[in-house]
Amino acid sequence: MIGKKASITKVISEADVEKFAELSLDINPIHLDEEYAEKSVFGKKIAHGFLVGSLISAVIANKLPGYGSIYLKQEMNFKRPVFLGDEITAEVEILEEIKPSVFRIGTKCTNQSGDIVIDGFAVIKKG
Amino acid sequence: MIGKKASITKVISEADVEKFAELSLDINPIHLDEEYAEKSVFGKKIAHGFLVGSLISAVIANKLPGYGSIYLKQEMNFKRPVFLGDEITAEVEILEEIKPSVFRIGTKCTNQSGDIVIDGFAVIKKG
Repeated sequence: MIGKKASITKVISEADVEKFAELSLDINPIHLDEEYAEKSVFGKKIAHGFLVGSLISAVIANKLPGYGSIYLKQEMNFKRPVFLGDEITAEVEILEEIKPSVFRIGTKCTNQSGDIVIDGFAVIKKG
Repeated sequence: MIGKKASITKVISEADVEKFAELSLDINPIHLDEEYAEKSVFGKKIAHGFLVGSLISAVIANKLPGYGSIYLKQEMNFKRPVFLGDEITAEVEILEEIKPSVFRIGTKCTNQSGDIVIDGFAVIKKG
C-alpha cells in the first residue's frame, strides 16, 4: 500500500464555479464578477480553493484507498490561483500507515503547466 | 480585528450532496447510495466533508475578513459525520495576525445539536 499513487483530472469550468458558489454560499466576487476580478491581484476570475481541493476527496474516495475511506483530516496549502478553464490533476500518494488501517496520504493538485496549485496531506481511515 | 467572529448556517440537503458529487467527481456510495450507507458504520448517507467545509470558505469570503480574502491554508479535522438534513453552522474567529495582513483564523463547523463536526484553522491574506 505504501508508495501507491492515483490521480484524477478535470477542467474547472465557469459553470462549475457558479454551481459551487450556490452550494457553498461562497459568493466572493473574485470567483463570479469579471470586472471585480480584473482589478484584483489575479487579473481574472479564479476558482474556489475548496472546489479544486474537492478533487482530492474524489481520488481518495473513488480510487485510493477507495470506497470505504473515511476522512479524518485534510490540510491544504494554496500555492497558486486556479483560473476558469484550467485543467487540474489531483494526485494522492500513500505515505505511511500511522496506525492499523489509518494512512497519512500526500495530496497535491497541479495545473496543465505542471505547477502545484495545492499541496498538503490527508489522514484517512480505510473502513 | 483579533477576537472577531462570524458565522453562516445552512441545511445540507440531499440535492446539495448530489450536486456536489457531480462537481467534485466524488461518487463514494456512502454519500449517494442508501443501501450501501445503511451497511456502513454510519448507518445512513453522509455529506461530503469538503461540502461541509466549504461553508468555512463562505464565511471567510463573505463576512470575515470578507471580500478580498485570499486563502493561503486550510486545515480540517473531521470529527463527526454530517447527515443529510443536518443544519450546519460554520464559525470563524480571527486568532492572530501572523504578519501584516495575514491572519490565522480558527474555523469550526457544528451541527444542530451543537456537536463539532469539523474543526481546524485557516491562514488568510486580507488583500
